[in-house]
Amino acid sequence: MTKIGIIGGTRGMGNWFARFLEKEGHAVRVFGRNVSEANIAEMADTCQVVVVSVPMGATGEVIAKVGPHMRKASLLMDLTSLKRDSVKTMLETSVSEVIGCHPLFGPRINSIAGQNVVLCPARARKWLSWLTDIFEKNGAFVLAATPEKHDQMMAIVQGLNHFNTIMMGLVLSKAGVSLSELMKFATPGFRAKMEIMERVFCQNPGLYADILTMNPDIHRHIEAYEQDVAQLKKLICQGNSAGIADVIEKHASFFEVI
Amino acid sequence: MTKIGIIGGTRGMGNWFARFLEKEGHAVRVFGRNVSEANIAEMADTCQVVVVSVPMGATGEVIAKVGPHMRKASLLMDLTSLKRDSVKTMLETSVSEVIGCHPLFGPRINSIAGQNVVLCPARARKWLSWLTDIFEKNGAFVLAATPEKHDQMMAIVQGLNHFNTIMMGLVLSKAGVSLSELMKFATPGFRAKMEIMERVFCQNPGLYADILTMNPDIHRHIEAYEQDVAQLKKLICQGNSAGIADVIEKHASFFEVI
Repeated sequence: MTKIGIIGGTRGMGNWFARFLEKEGHAVRVFGRNVSEANIAEMADTCQVVVVSVPMGATGEVIAKVGPHMRKASLLMDLTSLKRDSVKTMLETSVSEVIGCHPLFGPRINSIAGQNVVLCPARARKWLSWLTDIFEKNGAFVLAATPEKHDQMMAIVQGLNHFNTIMMGLVLSKAGVSLSELMKFATPGFRAKMEIMERVFCQNPGLYADILTMNPDIHRHIEAYEQDVAQLKKLICQGNSAGIADVIEKHASFFEVI
Repeated sequence: MTKIGIIGGTRGMGNWFARFLEKEGHAVRVFGRNVSEANIAEMADTCQVVVVSVPMGATGEVIAKVGPHMRKASLLMDLTSLKRDSVKTMLETSVSEVIGCHPLFGPRINSIAGQNVVLCPARARKWLSWLTDIFEKNGAFVLAATPEKHDQMMAIVQGLNHFNTIMMGLVLSKAGVSLSELMKFATPGFRAKMEIMERVFCQNPGLYADILTMNPDIHRHIEAYEQDVAQLKKLICQGNSAGIADVIEKHASFFEVI
C-alpha cells in the first residue's frame, strides 16, 4: 500500500485517478486545487506519491508550490494534457523522482482496458515500474515518450482533432436547423460526429481552449488546415468532382493500413 | 410478390437493396449501369417497380432512358444521395408513380433497424405505403420530405460532414507521422474520428466528390466554415484561451438537447 496525495483530486481526471488507485489498494488523500501551503507541505512529507491534476493553466503554479517540499525518494507526477512545461517545472522545483503522466482518455470511461497512457519518465528510478504495472495489469497500453514527442503527438491527436470538431460544430449550430430535425436525416457517420461534438461542446470548454492555445506544435497544423479548406472550397465552387476524388485518392494510402 | 428491376443492382446500395427486397420475398432482377435500351424497355414492361441506383453523375441519363418505358401503374424510384434533379427527371420522363428514396446508410450496414430512410413521394399513390411498410417492418425510420428539403439537410448531414472529415484527413496525412505511431497516442475520440476518415478516404472517393460538388446548398456552409477557421485560428495565434472557451460555450446549447 502506497500513500498517495492528489491535488485536484475532487473532480475530473484527478478524481478518476483517486478512485482507480483506491481500487488498487492504495491510501489516497485528495485535495482541491486551492489547497493551502501548510497542507501541501504536510502532504509532501507524508505521501510517497504526489499527483498534480489541476487545469493546464494552473499546473505550473501548483507544481512550483509542491515541488520544493517533495522528498528525494518520493514521486512527483502530473496528469496534464501537455508535458513540456509541467515536466520541466517538476524537475526544476523538486529533488524527487519525476514522471509526467497523460492518461489518453476522459474520466467518463467505463474501463481502462485497451486505453493508452503516455508516461514521460524524466527522473525515474523505482517508481516507473510501480506506475507502469498499475496501468498494465488493468489492460492499458503504456508508452514512454519524451515531453517533446508527447506534445507533438497531442498537437494532432487532441489539437487538430478538437479544432476539426469545433469547426463542424460552429457551422452546424449556425445552419438554421434544429438538432431534432437534423437527427431525423442522420446517417451513422453523422451520428458518430454528433457524439464527438456533444462531448467537446458540452463538457469542459476551458480544457479544449487550453489544449488549442498552450501547445505551439498546433500552429503548423492549423496553417495547413486553412490552406486545405481554401483548396477544397475552390474545387467545390468549380464543381470539379474529378479533382476532389483525386485529392481523396491521393491521401487514401495513409489510412489503408488500419 | 412484386417484380422489381434494379439498374445499378450489381454493386453498392443497388446491390444491398436487391438483397433486401429478395429477403422480403420479391422477385428482383438486377442490371449493370450500362444496360441496353432493349433490356430497359423489356424491364419497364415486365417489372412493377424499377429502381435506379447508379452514380450521381449518371442518374439523370439513366432515368431519361427508362422513364418513357414505364407503365402508369408502375413505380419508378431512385436511391441517389441528391433528390432535386433525379425526382424532377423521373416526373418529366415518365407517366408512372414516382418516389425518390434515400436510404441514409451505406451497403455495409449490419441491420436496417434504427436507420433513417427519406422518401420524396412526388407522384405516389398505391406504392408509397408498399415502400414505407417494407422499411418500417424492418425497424427503419421513414421520413417523407420534399426533394428541396432533403437536399438542404444533406448539405449538412453529408456535405458539411464529409468536408469536415476530408479536412482532418488531409492535414493528418501530411503531418509527418505514421498512422501506427499515431494510434499509440490515440484517445477514444481520435479513434472514432479515424474510423470515419478511413471510411471516407478508402471506400468511394467519387461518391464523396459528387456529394460535395452536386449540391448547391453546400456553398453557404463551406463559406461559413472558412470564416470560422479564420476566426478560431486568430484566437489560437493570440493564445486567447478564454476567447475560445467563450466561443465553445456560446454554441453549446445547440448540442445540449441530445
